[in-house]
Amino acid sequence: MNADLINPFLKAAVNVLSTMAFVKPIPGKPFLKTDRQAIGDISGIIGMTGAKKGIVILSMSKEAAIKVVGSMLGEKYTELNDEVSDAIGELTNMISGDARRELAQKGYVFEAGLPSIVKSPKHVIEAMTKAPSVAIPFDLEGAKFVVETSFE
Amino acid sequence: MNADLINPFLKAAVNVLSTMAFVKPIPGKPFLKTDRQAIGDISGIIGMTGAKKGIVILSMSKEAAIKVVGSMLGEKYTELNDEVSDAIGELTNMISGDARRELAQKGYVFEAGLPSIVKSPKHVIEAMTKAPSVAIPFDLEGAKFVVETSFE
Repeated sequence: MNADLINPFLKAAVNVLSTMAFVKPIPGKPFLKTDRQAIGDISGIIGMTGAKKGIVILSMSKEAAIKVVGSMLGEKYTELNDEVSDAIGELTNMISGDARRELAQKGYVFEAGLPSIVKSPKHVIEAMTKAPSVAIPFDLEGAKFVVETSFE
Repeated sequence: MNADLINPFLKAAVNVLSTMAFVKPIPGKPFLKTDRQAIGDISGIIGMTGAKKGIVILSMSKEAAIKVVGSMLGEKYTELNDEVSDAIGELTNMISGDARRELAQKGYVFEAGLPSIVKSPKHVIEAMTKAPSVAIPFDLEGAKFVVETSFE
């Protein structure tokens, strides 16, 4: 597990969510995923090229997504509607952008693709890489989400 | 709809599936997606950077995935297990690679990120772009799949 590549995503998730969505998620200890799977109800995915090929996934439970986007937009949501999807896509984009700025300062220059959003109860996302994924778990007042990264 | 960007993906899907999986899918007429959604049981996603930011999604019904991967690997599958996931990821990669070679000859040079795979019955994938997605529908002996592309 290359902490140089992981820590910027942990910091970026905390920065972006506190600045844009006014919430303070508590990061847990990053862990190696052996099963390659992220399980969530809504996920933002961004592919990266450049220094390495990589992928960043922000995968949230419905509860976490509604809490974060509700706080971000000052609305109350009960469903994962298009506004929530768009906001999760934006947040994924911003977390990727914030982390890439820091990675560039360390000499890893990445370019990011378009975000895509997956919505489906308890879906499974697998990064197709032989390297294991690293997941950073977050707790937001009991609601759970993870930021996952995989690099070739 | 920019046919220059779309046709290489249609040709690549037919090429790759006939060469690697020994099946002959029949392409339908590409159409603009207005709802931004791909619905499938298993999907491969690849982000692209370079000439434009883009995304390619190969989204298959369970029936189509089992048929294609079974023919590709000479096995009989009844479930979307890890072998099927890996093969769908590989096929997505090869379709993207084949299309990118042709696009480069037209002056559009793209670099591709890592593929990711989404598995979940009837999941929804939305590309986060203001431009509409173009879907190319395919029929494989009654089983359905689509190749979707979105470019910024």
